[in-house]
Order: sequence, then structure tokens, then C-alpha cells
Amino acid sequence: MADKITSRQEDYSQWYIDLVRSAKLADYSDVRGCMVIRPNGYAIWEKMQTALDGMFKATGHVNAYFPLFIPESFIAKEAEHIEGFAPECAVVTHGGGEELTEKLYVRPTSETIIWSSYKKWIQSYRDLPILINQWANVVRWEMRTRLFLRTTEFLWQEGHTAHATPEEAQEEVIRMINVYRTFAEEYMALPVIVGRKTDSEKFAGADATYCIEAMMQDGKALQAGTSHNLGQNFAKAFDCQFQSKDGVLEYVWATSWGVSTRLIGALIMAHSDDKGLVLPPKLASRQVVIIPILKGNKEEVRAHARFIARALNHHGIPTFVDDSENNSPGWKFAEYELQGIPVRIELGPRDIAEGKCVAARRDTLEKTELLLDDTLPANIEEILNNIQQNLYDRALLFRQENTVEVSSWEEFKAKVEKGFVIAHWDGTAETEALIKEETKATIRVLPTDEDYRQQYNMDEPGTCIHSGNPAAQKVVFAKAY
Amino acid sequence: MADKITSRQEDYSQWYIDLVRSAKLADYSDVRGCMVIRPNGYAIWEKMQTALDGMFKATGHVNAYFPLFIPESFIAKEAEHIEGFAPECAVVTHGGGEELTEKLYVRPTSETIIWSSYKKWIQSYRDLPILINQWANVVRWEMRTRLFLRTTEFLWQEGHTAHATPEEAQEEVIRMINVYRTFAEEYMALPVIVGRKTDSEKFAGADATYCIEAMMQDGKALQAGTSHNLGQNFAKAFDCQFQSKDGVLEYVWATSWGVSTRLIGALIMAHSDDKGLVLPPKLASRQVVIIPILKGNKEEVRAHARFIARALNHHGIPTFVDDSENNSPGWKFAEYELQGIPVRIELGPRDIAEGKCVAARRDTLEKTELLLDDTLPANIEEILNNIQQNLYDRALLFRQENTVEVSSWEEFKAKVEKGFVIAHWDGTAETEALIKEETKATIRVLPTDEDYRQQYNMDEPGTCIHSGNPAAQKVVFAKAY
Ligand SMILES: [Zn+2]
Ligand SMILES: [Zn+2]
Repeated sequence: MADKITSRQEDYSQWYIDLVRSAKLADYSDVRGCMVIRPNGYAIWEKMQTALDGMFKATGHVNAYFPLFIPESFIAKEAEHIEGFAPECAVVTHGGGEELTEKLYVRPTSETIIWSSYKKWIQSYRDLPILINQWANVVRWEMRTRLFLRTTEFLWQEGHTAHATPEEAQEEVIRMINVYRTFAEEYMALPVIVGRKTDSEKFAGADATYCIEAMMQDGKALQAGTSHNLGQNFAKAFDCQFQSKDGVLEYVWATSWGVSTRLIGALIMAHSDDKGLVLPPKLASRQVVIIPILKGNKEEVRAHARFIARALNHHGIPTFVDDSENNSPGWKFAEYELQGIPVRIELGPRDIAEGKCVAARRDTLEKTELLLDDTLPANIEEILNNIQQNLYDRALLFRQENTVEVSSWEEFKAKVEKGFVIAHWDGTAETEALIKEETKATIRVLPTDEDYRQQYNMDEPGTCIHSGNPAAQKVVFAKAY
Repeated sequence: MADKITSRQEDYSQWYIDLVRSAKLADYSDVRGCMVIRPNGYAIWEKMQTALDGMFKATGHVNAYFPLFIPESFIAKEAEHIEGFAPECAVVTHGGGEELTEKLYVRPTSETIIWSSYKKWIQSYRDLPILINQWANVVRWEMRTRLFLRTTEFLWQEGHTAHATPEEAQEEVIRMINVYRTFAEEYMALPVIVGRKTDSEKFAGADATYCIEAMMQDGKALQAGTSHNLGQNFAKAFDCQFQSKDGVLEYVWATSWGVSTRLIGALIMAHSDDKGLVLPPKLASRQVVIIPILKGNKEEVRAHARFIARALNHHGIPTFVDDSENNSPGWKFAEYELQGIPVRIELGPRDIAEGKCVAARRDTLEKTELLLDDTLPANIEEILNNIQQNLYDRALLFRQENTVEVSSWEEFKAKVEKGFVIAHWDGTAETEALIKEETKATIRVLPTDEDYRQQYNMDEPGTCIHSGNPAAQKVVFAKAY
């Protein structure tokens, strides 16, 4: 059984660590900064992969696989890129018992190794677009780690596309950040703000970075996915030109986009509670647990439990029975609440006699009596749908309640300690840096979503919250993971 | 369009390379010994993963993920293991800009890093069994590489299980080699011999290795999957004990088992021909291509082609239309034969008028006229089933025709140049080594399958083909990839 979980109130960071370890989602390994993703955690990643992979394929992408190792000279070809990534790389210096003539970097991201292939594959406009995604592990040396959110090795997908025109590339960038938004909202039940990053916060080597930003239960922001317009930067670095329809040689236009296992951390921090994991049903590999109350004719209770499980599974609701006698029903209730199983069905001899059962939903812990007849699957499905919707609604409400517009610097400093702060910014990197230095808050996003911009009058001109200079728009500030 | 492919007759090795590159399955990268798996090749791996992952889950396994890096001291804990793997490892010596105090090996296989976690997870018999699989990349430094078959980095799955008794562990070892056999036969259409490896050929750190061995079209053997009984070797190396039901501390029993992207190489070498890839329908992500002959009322032909594609897709037969006018039908026929699409449907204005189409199957290149009515999906499905069966049958026939029993050393040396040779062996590592030295042939497998043993009278005692000493059984020799 689980160790006690610290409450969110008492210590939010400790709550997160306790939960991840008690629910057996992940563990630190004996390798500094690297995690073990345990079966309960990996099952969430598999559900995420299946949903995302389907969305990538529906938008015309195919999967491929490129090498783990990147020669030092490749990383060095794009100036901003090497400056951003080289310091946090793991470096292979020996292979097959010998010292290598050129060092190999373990990929921190794959733009360079992929563009060294694209250069060979692209001659003419007929070879474009290339719409490739890769599921892979990447390594970025981290000094301070946190399970799922920041580890030296993590799993992700990285899309890398090549286009004949800047318009097409920009369309792709927007298409994919919207795919991430849909995934976050519809599968993770996580409301996100879609928008651009400032130049200081963008990807090393990109012309522009789009992101989705979510709010965690402690009011901090978490960047949940990014989509980069790479312009012609990598095509130029790898001398990748194509013959256009007009017979002119031009550099190829590029995008890249990715999400990672940090989404599992976001999922936990957005929805879970002091009893443990709360999972949106769409990302739960097991949606229902049936716990028979083994009294009286135990075998009859067991048989009924199995029969109901078969019926629910038959209706596409993944269900399992825990009828072991090693643990009490109470122990099992706590254990599956900890594991985040969305619905628990309790079933005793009296229930069976009365033709009913009790269904407890994980998000609100409410219990409902349901009939043990052919209405059961539809009733369970409705509860699951309600959970999925309720998680989204309450996360959105929480974000709204913790988003505040401010117009004085004193107010800014006070409010940015928890939640999102909407304030005017003069558009300079200098002001951005000063605010970060003084408050540790950063500009999370310049929202692009029209509804969001209108809700907070983002386009209204005003005075910069820090410099006092004229500001063309408001932006979203927060402390972030 | 593809470059010309060398014929198998002319140069089998060159044929393989030409095919892999022309069909855009894989490419060498700019990193020595590492390949790029291109979308056409990766699509095969995805089909393999889906089928295998389903079989693993059906036998009670769950997925997890362990670190890429293994501390040098871990690899060193199992004596045979370090001797076998350390010389072929890639070694990380620097991370985050600093020299590491302990070198990290990029995993060549994960027994050691996984058992360092299992040690923490296992206290009592209640914690057993652990039935975990991992999908991952691994690195083994290779001097001589061949796309898919032998590369420095490759993709694989590795199962790692922990058990309370040696009987349970052995059951698992046999269960999983049989899963591989079923996968090879039913999905890859590849007949395999199931059996044990000799001690000289077993996994470094195992008590016993079971394998499936397949024959390629040049008569060479290819090891397509292995399942290892690791005894208590790794539990002892990592001091992993559990309290048994009787309250006694015992070391845990272990297995591991894996298949890799080398299966794609096996698939190609077993079935493909001088025109290109031949794919078993069950591993083809696109089973049917419709090529409209664009004459007369082109739009009507196109519309019919799309209508048929929808009908076939609706019946679960993945179908696409190539109606581009950039390339001629003849060019398309060759291109999709190269890519191994199992069935091609040709459809011209006259066919439509007569209510029929022509279906060409990739394995035999035979053409059949089919009616354009609601019998079409069932007829196409029958052709697909026939292809799947025919590929298996002809590979089995080929193996039988190229398996020979010999009783003299002269005959052995002649016959072992191509195909499998069944011969008596005295059971000593010394004889095994001498035979390898003189002929480059190895003992591929001590078959465990009763049918196979009976077919070749494997249990018949006799005289060792090389030493002339008494031999209790016959074994299977071959040159191998
Ligand atoms: Zn200031
Ligand atoms: Zn000899």
C-alpha cells in the first residue's frame, strides 16, 4: 500500500513527488538525473502516443527514425543552435574500445542530424513537402531534476517538416500547435493558451516559436508543447536547396514541433488531489475497477463481478476486477483512488440481491447507485464523459480565477507569486529580462487565440508595467516549471 | 523512380543493398554505422510493433522505460556480461560541459540497469512475478555494418521478467520464444526452427538461450529472436533477494527476450525479388494501390477509383489511389512493385464500362479479372490471404529444399556453403570451434520442436561429423547473418 502523501496545502512540491512515487508512476534511477518510467506511468504515455500519432497521421505525417548520435560538427553548423544546446549535451568520446576522431553528441533534439538527411533527399519541388515525425528519447543534462517535468533523459516526439514556401511552413507551424491544443483540451482535459513566445524564449535556431501554456494547481505555468518556424536557418546550415517550379535554386523552409513525457507531469499537476492521481478517462488504460465485497456466497459475488466486467469491456469500457482476499475493500478503494482509476464499482451480496451496484467517480468522489441491467454500460459511459468534461471545466475555472490583470508594478509583484498576470509590456528584451531578474516571472505567451485576446483586451495600448514606456499590447506573465 | 536493382543471381548482397535504398526503406546516415529508418521502412516496424505489443499484453506483460545510460560499475557486476558487451559499447565521458566521475555506457542491452531497479521493487514473493517489456534503442559498436541486419544503433524490444521459482522462469522463456515463433510464422510468413543455442552461442550472462532461426534466400541462417533463461545470475550480481512464502530469503529468477529491427532485414531477404520488396499483407500498412488508367473521361475514371478505394477501406483493407498525371501507369506499376504493395488494381475506362477491373498480386505477379460489384472486397481479401499463405509455403519449401543431412566431412564442407546442414555433433565446444574455424559455419540451433526433430531424426545417435567421436544427437549447422 502507498506511503502517506503530503497534502498540496502543506507542500505542493512534496505532494507531487509523493504522488508520483506512491502511485508507482516513475522513480529516480541510479543514473544521475535519469528516471525510470514505471508501468503505471508508461501506460499513460502509451495512451498519449496513440492519440497523438493518430492526429499526426490524420494531418498527413509519417514516422521515421534518425540516429541517436550527432557529430559535433553538425551541431556547430547553426550558430544559435549550438549556443543553446551544446552546454547541456552528453558526449560520447569512445566507441568499440577506441577513442573517436570526432565526438558524438547524444541528441538533445534532432534538427541537425535530420537536415543532413533531408539535404540528400531533396533536389526538386517534387520532393516537397516532407512531413516526418519521430518518436524517440533525447538527453539534456540537467542540474536540478523533477520526475517527468525535467530529467536528463526523456521521451518525446519531434516533427520535422520541409516545405517549398514560407507560407506553407507557417501553415504547418500553426496546424501543429492547434493539434497540440486539441490534444491538451480533448484528451488531457487541460485548457491551454495558444500563442507565440518572445524572442528571448524561443527555440535556439527558430525564427518563431508557438506554444501552448497551461496552469498548474499551484498557479505556475507549464509549457506543454511547442511548434517552431525554423525559416531557412537549417537549410542554409546544411546547404539544402531545391529547384523550384520556375527552375530557380532556393533554400528549403523548415518547421519542427514536439511534446514530451513532461505532459504526464502536467496531467498530474493539473488534476490530481491529496488522495492521488486523477486521470481523464480518455487517457486511462483502465477506466473501471470492480471491487466485489466478498461476503456470503463469495463465488457468486465473484461471478457477478466478472460478468459485469465482461459486459463493460464488450462495450469498449476497459474494466478489471480485483477480487483478491489479501486486501480489504477499504484498502482497495484507497489503492485505486491513488492510481486514478476513473470509476470504482462496489458490489456486495445485498447489491446483487437488489439488482444494483454503487459507482464512485474519482474526480468528485461522489457515489451513485446504478441498476445491474442493460442500462449499466450507458450509465457508466455517461459518468466517464462527465468526469472528462468536469476535469476540463474545473481546470478552466481555476485558471480564470487565478488570472488577474494588473496596472501597477507593486500589484504585479504581489500577484505574480501565484497565477497568471496580464500586463502591458513595452516589447523590449531588456524590460523582459529585468522583470525576470526581479520577480523570476517570465513572459509565458503572446496569445494568438482571438477569444483569449478579447477576453483580456490584449490589443489595448497602454503603459509598460515595468518601464512605464508605451506598450502596444498586453502579455501573459507567470512563474513557470 | 528507382535506380536499377542488381539481380539476386548476380550478387545477392548488392541486391539487398540496392533494394533497401531504392524502396527507400533505410539509408546510412552521416554517423558511422548508424542508419536512418525511412518512412517506408519504419511503417513495417510500426506494424511489427503493434502485432508484437498485442501479443505481449495478451500474455500478461506491461511496458515501462529504463534509462539509456548505464554506469560502468553496473555493467561490471556480471562477469560474463561485461566480457561480452563492454568491448562494443559507446561511452559517454562528458555531460553538461564537465567530465563525469563515472563513465556511462549507452545501453547495449538493459539487464543491469533494470535489475538495479528490480532490487528496489522486490522484497517479498507478493512482488513477483514482474513481467515488463521495453521498446527502446540500443547501441553496439559494429565494425562491419549492413542496413537493418547489423548497425551500431538499432531499435528493439526487450522483455525482462522476475520470478519466484526456476520453473516459472523457464515457462516464461518458452512462452516468449513461442510468441516469437507465432509472430514470425503468422505475420512475417517466415518458417522458423525453434530451439536452444549451444553454450558458445548463448547470451553473455544467460544460463540458456532459446532462439528462432530462419533461412534467407541465399541459404544463410538469420537469428530472428532470442529468449534467455538468466537463472539467478543478475539477481546475484545486484543482490536481489525476496522473502519466499516459507519466509526464506532467496535470489530471484530472471528471463529476458528480444527482437529488433533486424526482423525487417529478415523479411526482405526471405521474400523479396529482383523487382523489389515483397511484403506479407499482414505487415503492409498499405495493402492495395489502385492505378486508374487516365484516358477518355478522366474524372469519371478517377471517381470510380476513389469509390472503390473507399469501399475497400471500409472493409478494413487499407487502399490508396495514385491518380497523379506526372507518371505513366507503367512507371507506377514498377514503383509499387518496388515498394511491395501486395495488390495492384488497374482500372481503365473500358474496365469500368465492362464492370470489371484487373488485380495483380505482388508475390506471383499474376493478374486476375474481378467484378466491380459488392463481391470485390471479399475477392481482394481472398487474394491477400492467398499471398500471406503462399509466402509462407514457398519459404518453407525453399528451406526444405535447402536443408540436407550429411554424414561425411567432405560433404559437410560442400553443402554448408548454401543452406542448412543437419549433422551429428559430439557436444563439445572444442569441435564446435574447430568447425567454425574451418568452414565459418556455426551450430545455429539444437531444435526443440518435436515435429522438426522427428522429421530429421535428430535424436538418432551417431558419429560426430568432425571429430568422429560418439554423438548423442544431430544439430543444425549453417553460415549466418
Ligand atoms: Zn525594476
Ligand atoms: Zn578438422
